[in-house]
Amino acid sequence: MADKIDMLSLDACALRERLASGAIKAVELIEACIARIEAREPEVQAWAWFDPDFARHQAKALDAHRQAGRPVGPLHGVPVALKDVIDTAKIPTENGCALDQGRVPIKDAAVVERLRAAGAVIMGKTVTTELAFMQAGKTRNPHNPAHTPGGSSSGSAAAVADGMVPLAVGTQTGGSVIRPASFCGVTGFKPSFGAIPRSGVLMQSPTLDTVGVFARTPADAALLSEVLFGHDAGDTATAPQPTPALLNTAQSKPLVKPVFAFVKPPGWDEADPQLHAAFDELAEALGEQVFEAPLPKAFEEAAEVRERINFAEMARYYYRYGKQIDALGPRTQEALTKGNAILARDYLAALDWPDVLYAGLDEIFERCDAILCPAATGPAPEGLEFTGDAIFNGLWTLTGVPAVTVPAFTAENGLPMGVQLVAARGQDARLLRTANWFQSWLLEAGE
Amino acid sequence: MADKIDMLSLDACALRERLASGAIKAVELIEACIARIEAREPEVQAWAWFDPDFARHQAKALDAHRQAGRPVGPLHGVPVALKDVIDTAKIPTENGCALDQGRVPIKDAAVVERLRAAGAVIMGKTVTTELAFMQAGKTRNPHNPAHTPGGSSSGSAAAVADGMVPLAVGTQTGGSVIRPASFCGVTGFKPSFGAIPRSGVLMQSPTLDTVGVFARTPADAALLSEVLFGHDAGDTATAPQPTPALLNTAQSKPLVKPVFAFVKPPGWDEADPQLHAAFDELAEALGEQVFEAPLPKAFEEAAEVRERINFAEMARYYYRYGKQIDALGPRTQEALTKGNAILARDYLAALDWPDVLYAGLDEIFERCDAILCPAATGPAPEGLEFTGDAIFNGLWTLTGVPAVTVPAFTAENGLPMGVQLVAARGQDARLLRTANWFQSWLLEAGE
Repeated sequence: MADKIDMLSLDACALRERLASGAIKAVELIEACIARIEAREPEVQAWAWFDPDFARHQAKALDAHRQAGRPVGPLHGVPVALKDVIDTAKIPTENGCALDQGRVPIKDAAVVERLRAAGAVIMGKTVTTELAFMQAGKTRNPHNPAHTPGGSSSGSAAAVADGMVPLAVGTQTGGSVIRPASFCGVTGFKPSFGAIPRSGVLMQSPTLDTVGVFARTPADAALLSEVLFGHDAGDTATAPQPTPALLNTAQSKPLVKPVFAFVKPPGWDEADPQLHAAFDELAEALGEQVFEAPLPKAFEEAAEVRERINFAEMARYYYRYGKQIDALGPRTQEALTKGNAILARDYLAALDWPDVLYAGLDEIFERCDAILCPAATGPAPEGLEFTGDAIFNGLWTLTGVPAVTVPAFTAENGLPMGVQLVAARGQDARLLRTANWFQSWLLEAGE
Repeated sequence: MADKIDMLSLDACALRERLASGAIKAVELIEACIARIEAREPEVQAWAWFDPDFARHQAKALDAHRQAGRPVGPLHGVPVALKDVIDTAKIPTENGCALDQGRVPIKDAAVVERLRAAGAVIMGKTVTTELAFMQAGKTRNPHNPAHTPGGSSSGSAAAVADGMVPLAVGTQTGGSVIRPASFCGVTGFKPSFGAIPRSGVLMQSPTLDTVGVFARTPADAALLSEVLFGHDAGDTATAPQPTPALLNTAQSKPLVKPVFAFVKPPGWDEADPQLHAAFDELAEALGEQVFEAPLPKAFEEAAEVRERINFAEMARYYYRYGKQIDALGPRTQEALTKGNAILARDYLAALDWPDVLYAGLDEIFERCDAILCPAATGPAPEGLEFTGDAIFNGLWTLTGVPAVTVPAFTAENGLPMGVQLVAARGQDARLLRTANWFQSWLLEAGE
């Protein structure tokens, strides 16, 4: 049992090295994860679908594959959890929605195909809020079960935070990767819009929907993302271009010390005062490596614009759910009702905003390696009903820029708070390197 | 003067050969065109802006260029008319709209840049309906001034039909190239969606807006289109791919006799009975080269779907006109009012239709070289108020397929009626070759 605990303390990069060499067998790691899940799941409730034998079966096959001397993939034997909006062939994918109970896709999502090809063990499906919106699921914050884990990728964030799996996949349309990662104290990475294909992922708002990952470190996020990145003919948002070397770049040292632009996004004044104090300290500690950069005034419109696009597209792509709207939770109902009333001309006008807003960031990105800002408005709120405010995330989803959060502070109630790093579109690899540097710097600064 | 008349009887391919060799000087041709315009314009009213000296100046410069032994472009000295929704630097572009009176762009549209680079003479700006919609301009049908020339590219069609210019550029969002070409008895060509860049062209409905051309023959249309085709970074609908060899293909002989699928689109039963009779005769004359192909039932929705997309986008992109809606004609007002009321979810649902409908054409395109159908519901209607019904055009604009019309029949009132040929997306060159064959066949059959 001691061995198993040790295994679970390793990060994904360390695990995959040992799995590839045979120092750890896939079945051993999977048994350790299963034990952890079975011990903790009654409290954390991270899983929408979990069958230990399903995971064991994959692990056995992977061990046999390796022992036969066949080449192993970059995630050989590494367990990965999938948010339950990501289609898995023959395995229920219920989108956190009563109307999808018993829904079993016939085809894997593109990201699942890529994970399988990379040798990952699909560990199971994690709890999502209803249809990846705001109606909370059953998951609790592993740090304190009286608090929300955040949403909508609640189970993915909680499962990684609780050590049940080293890696998980989620999605973000507003703040559904970065916020739960911050609340649960793990690394969350939302890549540039269009970096990871969404074929086979529940479509809520195609202008915004972004697949992202949860991990223990930025390097682990890079390891997983590198497998998921790349063009897919089924998702026109992805471009036929080479995949960046995320992991190598993330693990490399910046040539010079990174410079950060500290940004106070709309909502800053209303955020938890603990954050204000924490960022003051952070800025002081970073010294000449940070400057404060005001966001263009137009960003005050970002939340409204993002919501308009989100709700209008939701009304369209959740049409079949909307037809049975009474079966949905009140938060989903409210969004659909709002979305149903949005006019085409207003929706089309909103679509012009992402590029306009992005243009306003140019001047900031030119002067820094990454923007620094809070990942959420404070620590995870008490209660399970409200998954938290996404105001510090929506603007980056809307502009399609890559964002990563790393756990940085601890609130008075003992809950973690993340610092969010944001870079220019397409600068995913460099952002992960900067985040890696930042995480190491935090550890040193904390010593 | 006799010489000038002869010059005007030549098609663009013949002209450009003589212009390139020096057998005809650009100034001679331009003077002939000017004379024709000055003689006929009081009756036809094709021009929104025309300055003979502007054309003369270009012609002189082109002659000097050629005489200096410098290389000449593919349209060296060929006069081209531009619909007045196409921006021309320093030259008024008023979009047929009172609200744009005195509007002078600072930049040429992408197509104008390409024309200038090809050595074309920009002859002037031709009348468009108000904002390229249904509110008629002043232009009359050259065959009978009591009849509409069709719209919205009214002046471009009339100018070519009247021999004022051999070539003209227009745009089609519903049926604004094919219909006026049919009414005026010229060749009209609306290429595949995205073939010609729309940068600098009035944006009415970016999902539908297509730049097209008017000419005397399909080969002439190919000559002009080949200059206009190709990727432009300013129009995301254009793809970075090689331009097809339109002219060479159009002028080549098909290896085997083309086969046509005769299609009766929605609206067929209500069309002018003269058309029914003419197509019966046509089918009989084509014999084994034609088969009748029913359109999938879903095409009954095409007109409504196209209109929904058109009006919703119009409400967005004509927002600045809509703010002064009382300054617009009643037809434009009505469309904007309808567009203002369209819901985003209904608009988004409509956007799924083009590909769905297009998939239903696969089976037809596999069995033929081109679809054959009427270009309009009959000859040009009497009066200038109503520019005609686009029901036989909108479905091809919506599905993004290339369409060409060639004059084929003469109605009892002496007005021309076109036959429309339609091919699969991207098959523009082959379609023009088939249309070229068809035009020759018509001439032989008529002898």
